[in-house]
Amino acid sequence: MTQRWKEIDTYVKEWLKEAGQKIQQSFSKELLIQTKSNPNDLVTNMDKEIEQFFISKINETFPEHHILGEEGYGEELESDEGTIWIIDPIDGTMNFVHQQRNFAISIGIFEDGVGQAGYIYDVIHNELYHALKGQGAFMNNIQLPKLEPVPVEQAIISLNATWVTENRRIDPSVLSPLVRKVRGTRSYGSAAIELAYVAAGRLDGYITLRLAPWDFAAGKVLIEEVGGVMTDLEGKPLEILEKSSVFVSKPTLHDEIFRTYLEGKWNK
Amino acid sequence: MTQRWKEIDTYVKEWLKEAGQKIQQSFSKELLIQTKSNPNDLVTNMDKEIEQFFISKINETFPEHHILGEEGYGEELESDEGTIWIIDPIDGTMNFVHQQRNFAISIGIFEDGVGQAGYIYDVIHNELYHALKGQGAFMNNIQLPKLEPVPVEQAIISLNATWVTENRRIDPSVLSPLVRKVRGTRSYGSAAIELAYVAAGRLDGYITLRLAPWDFAAGKVLIEEVGGVMTDLEGKPLEILEKSSVFVSKPTLHDEIFRTYLEGKWNK
Repeated sequence: MTQRWKEIDTYVKEWLKEAGQKIQQSFSKELLIQTKSNPNDLVTNMDKEIEQFFISKINETFPEHHILGEEGYGEELESDEGTIWIIDPIDGTMNFVHQQRNFAISIGIFEDGVGQAGYIYDVIHNELYHALKGQGAFMNNIQLPKLEPVPVEQAIISLNATWVTENRRIDPSVLSPLVRKVRGTRSYGSAAIELAYVAAGRLDGYITLRLAPWDFAAGKVLIEEVGGVMTDLEGKPLEILEKSSVFVSKPTLHDEIFRTYLEGKWNK
Repeated sequence: MTQRWKEIDTYVKEWLKEAGQKIQQSFSKELLIQTKSNPNDLVTNMDKEIEQFFISKINETFPEHHILGEEGYGEELESDEGTIWIIDPIDGTMNFVHQQRNFAISIGIFEDGVGQAGYIYDVIHNELYHALKGQGAFMNNIQLPKLEPVPVEQAIISLNATWVTENRRIDPSVLSPLVRKVRGTRSYGSAAIELAYVAAGRLDGYITLRLAPWDFAAGKVLIEEVGGVMTDLEGKPLEILEKSSVFVSKPTLHDEIFRTYLEGKWNK
């Protein structure tokens, strides 16, 4: 690892802990103000506050870097050239509001379109997943093993019930046979956490029809470091500045699911 | 709370902590033995070991009580008379094997068919949910507030994708409109945790087509103490010694979902 990425890594981890504390504190504040304010306002404020916190830290420390953030305080980027931070201050906002858990801070750092570092911080369970290109992926600094192949009938896949009911993005008959074939399905409501779970081997795959760059940027770096395969539902590589469907899974399983359930079936 | 239930409560909490430690220790052992043993054997052993642990403690301390356990070391009960412990040593076995988290120990204690005490222990996150009839429900001894009504379009419901694809128990067209109407769906793969989440207000409802008494006994006591409504999918009360579909949700929401999506539709 170069000195430069070691330095970036040190800063990000420090900022994540600080951001996590701000979020934790907001829950105790919420208990005080919940009678006078709408919880949706509160969460909007927290999303914004955390994004602005990271932007100000990054601008101060790495003024030449670019930032793309969910809340729109970053830049409008046309090109993936240079160093780009892709930030979701609270991924899983609905969980944040309803559950005060099962959300994460997600930060991916890309250089000329190539993922170099990824951080997914499950604040409440105090689990920090991170990866540095070529260095492996880690949970709380313990290295995650490479993913092993698994047959589809032994797989646990994260897949929301929405995608097997009538919806705007995919015919429900496409993924239903997969739901019937796998050992089980789950749905956690946070793409970042679902990607971290795949990276950690707790899920064998994850399929969803619409994610934004800030939902999957960090996860992409993690997945690549443990040998997972991540594409869109057409099997094409993800464009890091574009919204996209996402299909990620263990090696060989990706190919098996793609050929049997997806190829030529889902998109027109 | 009578002296008798205070005593039972003290014992159960002590045993749960001890059982939780056994499970935690099994994970470090697993790291040592994983190359020579099938993970499914390991989990079977742990399920059995934990059930036997509780049975021996209960027999020793309360010899006149009856026990119904998932692993079959308890009794075959024909009647709900007397004091009955209903135990799932590891609810969410698939999560236990694949994730080493998102499982729980579930213990419900019933007297002449009436739920008196319920315990759901999420071992890994160290969250103990418990309830005593008439005393309220608690997470780590902090009282859970009564559940408030919520309209269906703002609700988050736990509902596995299986139930909206072709399956043996329900036509997929029954629950699909509900999936489209709610704010979101989730699926965690442990009935006990899903029931604890409903009791804690993190989910507004949970629907599943087939549970055994040990899956829902503890949850039933918790749900009742926070004012939730729990029936089968026909709206009938649950029989505590019978397998059943389960439909639990916040007050008023139960009625709204039942009338709009379930009544007369799902069964035949």
